[in-house]
Amino acid sequence: MRRVAISSAATSRFAKAAERPIFDIACEPCFDILKESGKDVDAVLFSTCATEQYSSTIVSEMLGLKPKVSQRMDNLCNSGTNAIATAYSLIASGLCESALVVGAEKAHSEGNRLVWDVTRGSFNFPVHWASMFARSHMRLHGTTEEQMAQVSVKNHRNAARNENALFRKPVTLKQVMESKMIAEPVKLLDCSAPCDGASAVLLLSEEKTKKAKNPVWIKGIGQQTNGASFASNTDFTALDTAKKAANEAYKMARIKPSQVDVAELHDAFTILEIMAYEDLGFAKKGEGGRFVGQDGIAINPRGGILGCGHPVGATGVAQVAEITLQLSGRAGRRQVKGCKTGLVHNLAAAGSSATVMVLGS
Amino acid sequence: MRRVAISSAATSRFAKAAERPIFDIACEPCFDILKESGKDVDAVLFSTCATEQYSSTIVSEMLGLKPKVSQRMDNLCNSGTNAIATAYSLIASGLCESALVVGAEKAHSEGNRLVWDVTRGSFNFPVHWASMFARSHMRLHGTTEEQMAQVSVKNHRNAARNENALFRKPVTLKQVMESKMIAEPVKLLDCSAPCDGASAVLLLSEEKTKKAKNPVWIKGIGQQTNGASFASNTDFTALDTAKKAANEAYKMARIKPSQVDVAELHDAFTILEIMAYEDLGFAKKGEGGRFVGQDGIAINPRGGILGCGHPVGATGVAQVAEITLQLSGRAGRRQVKGCKTGLVHNLAAAGSSATVMVLGS
Repeated sequence: MRRVAISSAATSRFAKAAERPIFDIACEPCFDILKESGKDVDAVLFSTCATEQYSSTIVSEMLGLKPKVSQRMDNLCNSGTNAIATAYSLIASGLCESALVVGAEKAHSEGNRLVWDVTRGSFNFPVHWASMFARSHMRLHGTTEEQMAQVSVKNHRNAARNENALFRKPVTLKQVMESKMIAEPVKLLDCSAPCDGASAVLLLSEEKTKKAKNPVWIKGIGQQTNGASFASNTDFTALDTAKKAANEAYKMARIKPSQVDVAELHDAFTILEIMAYEDLGFAKKGEGGRFVGQDGIAINPRGGILGCGHPVGATGVAQVAEITLQLSGRAGRRQVKGCKTGLVHNLAAAGSSATVMVLGS
Repeated sequence: MRRVAISSAATSRFAKAAERPIFDIACEPCFDILKESGKDVDAVLFSTCATEQYSSTIVSEMLGLKPKVSQRMDNLCNSGTNAIATAYSLIASGLCESALVVGAEKAHSEGNRLVWDVTRGSFNFPVHWASMFARSHMRLHGTTEEQMAQVSVKNHRNAARNENALFRKPVTLKQVMESKMIAEPVKLLDCSAPCDGASAVLLLSEEKTKKAKNPVWIKGIGQQTNGASFASNTDFTALDTAKKAANEAYKMARIKPSQVDVAELHDAFTILEIMAYEDLGFAKKGEGGRFVGQDGIAINPRGGILGCGHPVGATGVAQVAEITLQLSGRAGRRQVKGCKTGLVHNLAAAGSSATVMVLGS
């Protein structure tokens, strides 16, 4: 099978809602990438929950591209990694030699809330899912509110070194613990915020990477969707989708969890990062709370979703963009030294769908 | 590279607008397919311009499926074939062993009109594109209104044998020529109609096809997108996108146009079918009008878009579904005898994007 690499990555500054069309937001991270690569791009895949028609082709035209493949793709919050998996397959299958994946979203996106899931009655905002997960994990495993808060402290601290993050100030444990209670025990600073933002990556076939400096190889991809709601959940302390996706990605990449040096995990809420440690095999089941702040693996060096903000269609692409920069030694102030193997963990809608990728330099 | 086949195909009855949710419309053609295949499906790809969020995963849940990959995809009228091309690549690349592609649309879809294209001022309904193409083809090549009308007569006649078509009555040349003028010289019966409808196909890897009866192989795929508007057109009598996509598909399939036995062409307007004959190399440039009614290739046996109706996200899937039935000998009253090689030609937005597929038994 043909190998596929990511040759370049760029992310725009995530920002509060402003009067900018989604197309303008989407184009922004692409200019630098295309200046370097030229306009001979075989595919443009646009990951967004924005509902404008023909959006991928409009973005292609605005960028001056005439690709073979142009399509917009969405699946709520893991749209971005799904689009990258599709780009991988277009190249690995031989249909394309290159693919530009751009993810973009506006703050007031229709993708911010899942109205379909009636399993929790009127409690259908994402924070309600987080509340159920947190309460269950606390009850079953003794995880504490302070441990969850430490996730927020760590990711805000990392985001302070990321000029593209929405939140650029560190927060203290006290500030997190005293922030407004939204849905017990989830507080305001345990939650991520929607925002405007975009990120883009360029994938190339092995032949085309000969001209690229420091290509980052896609070594493993795992995906799993169990449903659109909680209807099939039997456990609120672990995500079966993430476990399956991770196992598949590790198997394809032929690595063990302990070989991961750096990872971007889906911290839309602090409890999700704690669950991710366990689902990905970084920590044993129930030990996720105690794993916060360990220094064996660099977690969410860009600041994660908590620090950067959550432009839904862009998030998965931004996660992959960060790991690409890390593995190619281009992460500047955020550089994790000596990292060779990276992982991205991207969820959708209370973890009813999950995508995991393993990248390597 | 792994070979990929289509093992089953189904299309619902296309109908006038009714109060049915898009999800219900989408599920309908899938039941029979899944009864035969079982629920072990690796991917669900949903082609639609409908704007509901998480729609692919909602459809998966309604069908009782837990696929690895779930994503909704759109690019206006060639969403369907693009989704099938993506499904092909997911399997050919090894990420999946099977993929269900379902296309569905409601009559009052936001995909019926492209508001982005301002190249023609206020004349931005699709019929205005058809008017410009028709006038140019008539002026340059002497194509006549009667020749265009004959396309409508032929396709309505074919649709009369298709129990799933929107229009089940034949029309006469006189009826077409006397139908209401919409945009000179395009008359009402030169135009297709939006409607509710869905179609689905199941793709399998070569290993998985061992249990399938009469699998139909995907032999060639070609795609090209030149822009989102007329801004880059230099010719209104031929579609560069279709020509490029066709050449790529023929090259991948290692066939010549003369080897095509049966084809579904994008006849959203009668002139588009005439242009397709030329762009696909069935007729020489300028000869498309005279090619109508030839009997070397069976064209639009299901009745095409003119006869069946145009549920935008479903159309490309329905075209592929028809060719699949034809090549596997399951087209009943519409069966084209002895066909071995089939072609699908699917356009979007005035042919600013095109996808061509070659299938073989």
